[in-house]
Amino acid sequence: MSAEIDPFHAIAISVLAHRLKAEGHSIIHMEFGQPSTGAPAAAIARAHEVLDTDAMGYWESPALRERIARHYVETYGVTVEPERIVLTCGASPALVLALSAAFRPGDQVALARPGYVAYRNTLKALHMEPVEIACGPESRFQLTAAHLEALDPAPQGVILASPANPTGTIIAAEELEKIAKVCAARGIRIVSDEIYHGLSYVGPARSMLEFAPDALIVNSFSKYFSMVAWRLGWLIAPPELLGRARALVGNLFLTAPSLSQHAGLAAMDARDELEGHIAVYRANRELLLKALPELGLRSIAPPDGAFYIYAYVGHLTDDSLAFCKTLLRETGVATAPGVDFDPVEGRHYVRFSFAVSTPEIEEALKRLKPWFAARTSAV
Amino acid sequence: MSAEIDPFHAIAISVLAHRLKAEGHSIIHMEFGQPSTGAPAAAIARAHEVLDTDAMGYWESPALRERIARHYVETYGVTVEPERIVLTCGASPALVLALSAAFRPGDQVALARPGYVAYRNTLKALHMEPVEIACGPESRFQLTAAHLEALDPAPQGVILASPANPTGTIIAAEELEKIAKVCAARGIRIVSDEIYHGLSYVGPARSMLEFAPDALIVNSFSKYFSMVAWRLGWLIAPPELLGRARALVGNLFLTAPSLSQHAGLAAMDARDELEGHIAVYRANRELLLKALPELGLRSIAPPDGAFYIYAYVGHLTDDSLAFCKTLLRETGVATAPGVDFDPVEGRHYVRFSFAVSTPEIEEALKRLKPWFAARTSAV
Repeated sequence: MSAEIDPFHAIAISVLAHRLKAEGHSIIHMEFGQPSTGAPAAAIARAHEVLDTDAMGYWESPALRERIARHYVETYGVTVEPERIVLTCGASPALVLALSAAFRPGDQVALARPGYVAYRNTLKALHMEPVEIACGPESRFQLTAAHLEALDPAPQGVILASPANPTGTIIAAEELEKIAKVCAARGIRIVSDEIYHGLSYVGPARSMLEFAPDALIVNSFSKYFSMVAWRLGWLIAPPELLGRARALVGNLFLTAPSLSQHAGLAAMDARDELEGHIAVYRANRELLLKALPELGLRSIAPPDGAFYIYAYVGHLTDDSLAFCKTLLRETGVATAPGVDFDPVEGRHYVRFSFAVSTPEIEEALKRLKPWFAARTSAV
Repeated sequence: MSAEIDPFHAIAISVLAHRLKAEGHSIIHMEFGQPSTGAPAAAIARAHEVLDTDAMGYWESPALRERIARHYVETYGVTVEPERIVLTCGASPALVLALSAAFRPGDQVALARPGYVAYRNTLKALHMEPVEIACGPESRFQLTAAHLEALDPAPQGVILASPANPTGTIIAAEELEKIAKVCAARGIRIVSDEIYHGLSYVGPARSMLEFAPDALIVNSFSKYFSMVAWRLGWLIAPPELLGRARALVGNLFLTAPSLSQHAGLAAMDARDELEGHIAVYRANRELLLKALPELGLRSIAPPDGAFYIYAYVGHLTDDSLAFCKTLLRETGVATAPGVDFDPVEGRHYVRFSFAVSTPEIEEALKRLKPWFAARTSAV
């Protein structure tokens, strides 16, 4: 057995939510980071076609790799050779590939705390050493070039996430450039998780590839493209790690689902429908940003992108998991406890996912207002 | 970067085959272990339904886990609690999970040589030590209890495969029982890859679970259920490793494709259609078993199951990769070189996959006969 890794507590919340629902309670699912919308209509139509015409074997779609490459030119002005794109069963195996290709057991990899729980746990499962850097409101909960400059010794790698989970904060272009310079100077390999790209409310997020051509980029069809359960993601590897990444994917994972590759290609041209989802998230975000301070939740990370708000509840609890369970039982609103993202400060935080419908956000707020009012006055 | 892992040479053969096809040549694909049939009609029909009715989020189908548990009672007389079944994106990640849950870096894991290349490579990628045991015709290319008894020191684990790739040989029930006893006595944890179960021509294969309740079992919908590109597999973990396996799957992989889970459930009751595929494989196997000796290939492993014949070609070559390339260029028949399965003896072997149609087998034999006749007379 390898190093102990932590459970994802939001799963316990979700299980409780489903149990309460089965008992007849009305539940609003804001605990997971998944769009409640399905795949774009064009993707579903393409899947119907392929189901009837193709027996489907092991396959990596050349057309999809070329389309993703074109996306990088169009979105970021960066040229990526299609052969550098490795298709995977979602961003999770793409991260496993990235870390396995770039690092070895014992290597140190820096990452922001708070952050997506699987970064820390995947590093531990691969016997690498997570170097967690406490990132608070002063850096908008993000790593900075100064953090990476100050680490002694320099770690072998760093995982960046912009927009981030659980905070939605985006690292500005100037800071990305500074980070790239420090990493180049200190020999720190960058793994950039860009899974929330396309979901931003303050101008587009920039790709680390614009600043660090030898970074490894992880992305997927699960968030912007609203295709969570299709399990399709990609890794972009620099030429010197590509052979290793390809050998690893062939042995550890084989190919991504063929139907998802066909559907994903269609989804990439379904911009109108996808931008409609963003309009909903934008409205949801506005509603929450207005309402949460009225609930007494005044200290929240700026949700530049993604579909999360990470809110301080330390005036009400120092056990965010128990807090989320009580909140769920008493209001039917499921949220994720901060301890999933930050084992230290997370006991004072809760993450709201707003990838639901606007009427659901309105209903959630209707229930949260009296609940928080009662709690706040009791403190 | 972790330990070097080998490329899968059959991919190079496949790439050459596709290039020759694009140039107008007629190609018969016997290089990969994938059914040329698609998913059962009932699975495709179910997929169409779900596409139109379900937005699909992260999900692990309780009904599918229960149905797989029932399969173990009906097929092997073994009770498996549904919660011990972890659904994965195919058998490959299930193997990664099994090894990561059961072993740690530096642990020794025994396996037969020849064997599926990803066993060795996945162990190396996870920084475990493959202990390859040369298995020849005298043990039907399989590990035995005597092999495991003789290892000094005892390894931490062993990977078994029955029916095996590339030979199709099945380990008899009495030998499985002896292996289970030796492993229990010596503290060797068993990982049993049962991906070719259902595909047998000499009576059904038995599950290691019948003999070693604490074994980890890997299986998938890619072979018997003819759903390669749907990327759906499962791991059965013993209770003491289940928490670890679940934590790993949640961090490294998340869930399997939802559509595939719905379709896979339907496939499990499509026995008539699936048994029709077996009838084709059985006919193909008979044709090859009759014809290969006439080609001068008299030393072949007994293909008890799966859809492979592993044939000795050492009288014609000591470079099976070059041999497969020449064979492909001159006849259009693509095969896998033995070096993919055995870095030592494999240069003298070729693997034929007979998961194609019977007319394709007939056409392949028509081309192979004169080619082998010319080679054999030239030797």
